[in-house]
Amino acid sequence: MSDALAQMRAEVGDASMFLDDPADLAGYSSDWTRKFQGRTPLVARPGTTEEVSRVLAACNRHRIPVVPQGGNTGMVGASVPRDGEVVINLSRMNKIEGLDEPSAVVQVEAGVPLQALQEYLADAGYHMPVDLGARGSCQIGGMIATNAGGIKVLRYGHMREQVFGLEVVLADGTIINSLNRLRKNNTGYDLKQMFIGSEGTLGIITRAVLHVHPQPLAVRTAMVGLSGRDKMIGLLNAVRARFRGLSSLEFVVREAVDFVRKVDDTIREPLEGKHAVYVVLEEETADSEAASDAFVERLAALMDEGIVADGIVAESEAQAKEIWRIREAPTETIGKVALTHKFDVTVPQGTLAPFMNEMEALAAEVGGFICLQYGHLGDGNVHVNMVQKPELSADDFHAREAELAAQIYSTVASHQGSISAEHGVGLMKRKYLHYSRNAEEIALMSRVKRMLDPEGIMNPGAILEAD
Amino acid sequence: MSDALAQMRAEVGDASMFLDDPADLAGYSSDWTRKFQGRTPLVARPGTTEEVSRVLAACNRHRIPVVPQGGNTGMVGASVPRDGEVVINLSRMNKIEGLDEPSAVVQVEAGVPLQALQEYLADAGYHMPVDLGARGSCQIGGMIATNAGGIKVLRYGHMREQVFGLEVVLADGTIINSLNRLRKNNTGYDLKQMFIGSEGTLGIITRAVLHVHPQPLAVRTAMVGLSGRDKMIGLLNAVRARFRGLSSLEFVVREAVDFVRKVDDTIREPLEGKHAVYVVLEEETADSEAASDAFVERLAALMDEGIVADGIVAESEAQAKEIWRIREAPTETIGKVALTHKFDVTVPQGTLAPFMNEMEALAAEVGGFICLQYGHLGDGNVHVNMVQKPELSADDFHAREAELAAQIYSTVASHQGSISAEHGVGLMKRKYLHYSRNAEEIALMSRVKRMLDPEGIMNPGAILEAD
Repeated sequence: MSDALAQMRAEVGDASMFLDDPADLAGYSSDWTRKFQGRTPLVARPGTTEEVSRVLAACNRHRIPVVPQGGNTGMVGASVPRDGEVVINLSRMNKIEGLDEPSAVVQVEAGVPLQALQEYLADAGYHMPVDLGARGSCQIGGMIATNAGGIKVLRYGHMREQVFGLEVVLADGTIINSLNRLRKNNTGYDLKQMFIGSEGTLGIITRAVLHVHPQPLAVRTAMVGLSGRDKMIGLLNAVRARFRGLSSLEFVVREAVDFVRKVDDTIREPLEGKHAVYVVLEEETADSEAASDAFVERLAALMDEGIVADGIVAESEAQAKEIWRIREAPTETIGKVALTHKFDVTVPQGTLAPFMNEMEALAAEVGGFICLQYGHLGDGNVHVNMVQKPELSADDFHAREAELAAQIYSTVASHQGSISAEHGVGLMKRKYLHYSRNAEEIALMSRVKRMLDPEGIMNPGAILEAD
Repeated sequence: MSDALAQMRAEVGDASMFLDDPADLAGYSSDWTRKFQGRTPLVARPGTTEEVSRVLAACNRHRIPVVPQGGNTGMVGASVPRDGEVVINLSRMNKIEGLDEPSAVVQVEAGVPLQALQEYLADAGYHMPVDLGARGSCQIGGMIATNAGGIKVLRYGHMREQVFGLEVVLADGTIINSLNRLRKNNTGYDLKQMFIGSEGTLGIITRAVLHVHPQPLAVRTAMVGLSGRDKMIGLLNAVRARFRGLSSLEFVVREAVDFVRKVDDTIREPLEGKHAVYVVLEEETADSEAASDAFVERLAALMDEGIVADGIVAESEAQAKEIWRIREAPTETIGKVALTHKFDVTVPQGTLAPFMNEMEALAAEVGGFICLQYGHLGDGNVHVNMVQKPELSADDFHAREAELAAQIYSTVASHQGSISAEHGVGLMKRKYLHYSRNAEEIALMSRVKRMLDPEGIMNPGAILEAD
């Protein structure tokens, strides 16, 4: 262990906070995708904000780079050490500090897992509406640091829209307590916004006050089939105008459903006949027969008007789950069955269908891939999966990633889209950032970074090039 | 005119952009409240972003302070010159640059008046849900710079939640084009957030991309009466759980209604009998008889359960307007009839009733005032009006403002409230900022300010003490 590390540990004291046995370190050095594997000499597991502050202040004095880490479920490598950074893992800060019902807020420590919060809130009749597949592992602090989205962004927004207050520790150990509990508070700069989505490069989030909502009274779920991708935009416009409690509008293309059904025969054909695109539509409504009838009538009108070709309404929770499986199975299955390059992008909804066609043409042009797409119709977020064909070697699969990425991101840029809809930038997309942000924006980001982290110790290399 | 000003003008060129005739300058030197009156030697009226950039760059070179100005309808003096600043008025940048329906966004220049945008959107079947009484004059850029709220924050949030993209000119003239049109875009720091609510102290907003929503299908309006202030919190909890399309929940105390009815006999008694608190409840629902019946049933249940003492439902748009007048008349009338100190604060909803009682006790204690209150029950925003009693001289009325402010803001602070719910800080509340933000927060605000405006030319003295 280097002198600087030893000095830092001595200054922090409290030896029990640190792990340095190589056997212990492995679990903190790679993420669940196994795409990012690094090396750390030391993991700090602070249990309080003051401990986070002491560790950061000492690291800053000795210019020791750090990687903040939550549940380590990110997709872009932002929470994994690269080469010798100290990992600061927030898992021990896992207290739910209480629900304030009149204010409709809950205060939590950063290391609370999403699922623990959901269960706590459900018991009280509330929910925090950002939900993710990784809910068992992902932590609230990490979700804020990455501005997580999920399938209800359409109705409730991202994590950014749920956060009323934050407590953050800056690189030099300064604790910023901005644990506002009020919806309306126009007293100067809204400092917390800088840290939301900053992927641990500007400070460490230690606590948050989150807005909560009463549980939905009733949720209606339907699956509709479209005769072609050109029908997607008409469906979006009609649904937005008519389904005012819309919480999800998710699509998956026929090809992805076929791919999944070939390897998993428990997944049934979604509708009678085959359709080019399947869309899961979910609406929160009143819990009454009239509301249920009105939901069915709205769907029937979509069919009568030729906006959708076919549809079914879930009559039970089990049927709703089966509908959702059609949309979710590709996410889980594709990568398990074949090597897959995954791209998480947004394009303006008006160009979604042409963009998806361009992606398939690209797969054919580069060669060796089939392109399977699904995503969030409501906000233009497409998950583009470039899946290895049997004839493509693993070496060639990997060798072609850079070409695919450059082509996909430049196509995204030509549509004024985003190269990262919800996964963030991290290590993985840093070199492509210029496709979505211009030189002035990137220069301003660097100024913000230098202001808050002049020694450059906070998660170096994530989002921006390390100095 | 000083040498620096003359040089700045020469460098900018385009003499037609400037006004320097004293007769022209008066209208730019005070705001509509007449509380803030200053002096400016020069008004710049740029017509393009590039012109804003040229003016700012030249002012920055010569260290000439500037005050950005929109519709000049602010409440805290942030858009009025103090002593010799150049006013940069955005009114000429008033183009609506187009609605993108699939993306549900509209792009506008900063000087577009709110009402012009509302009319444009209504023609297309949409609305931008932040609405204010000043709609005829206030401009979108100013609304973003002050993070305006209004009566539908409960459902739609503030301006912050409507803004997808911004174009901003920094103090040194750098143009930051961050005109994102996407709901989901996690590509690095969300720079626009710094400028929203910064009251012209960090840069000048020149363009925005705003999220728009389809017009409501139907709006149901009701007025309910509460037997006491202790019933407010029960009503809030019940309404939040049951009225899922709730767009407004606004209260006004009996005393304010009495005050207004004494001077305006066109305002009718709101309900049979007298009630301690009146609440306007507005919900967006489906446009069907079943939805209308369900709304009435929900209200009837509130009465059956003793949560409200009485209530009426508007049967027509005219009746809805009459209900809204009960809530809005005090805002317009009180200040016209008597000298009034107005305080715009938030307290957590759970402490709203005790806080209101404390305010009345304070009016009695300081002496010479009656306290009339109304506001937004949904988010705890109270407008506290300290109204001159006949026996109080105008001199004493003014002399007691500082004492009232200090007492009110320290009471707000004791409840962890905000000394500015929606009006901002400006010049007026700068010295009270510490009641709502701690020393670390204010120090960090100052760092942000110095990073973006190292010469300190941008709206000096607004929010933060000028260096």
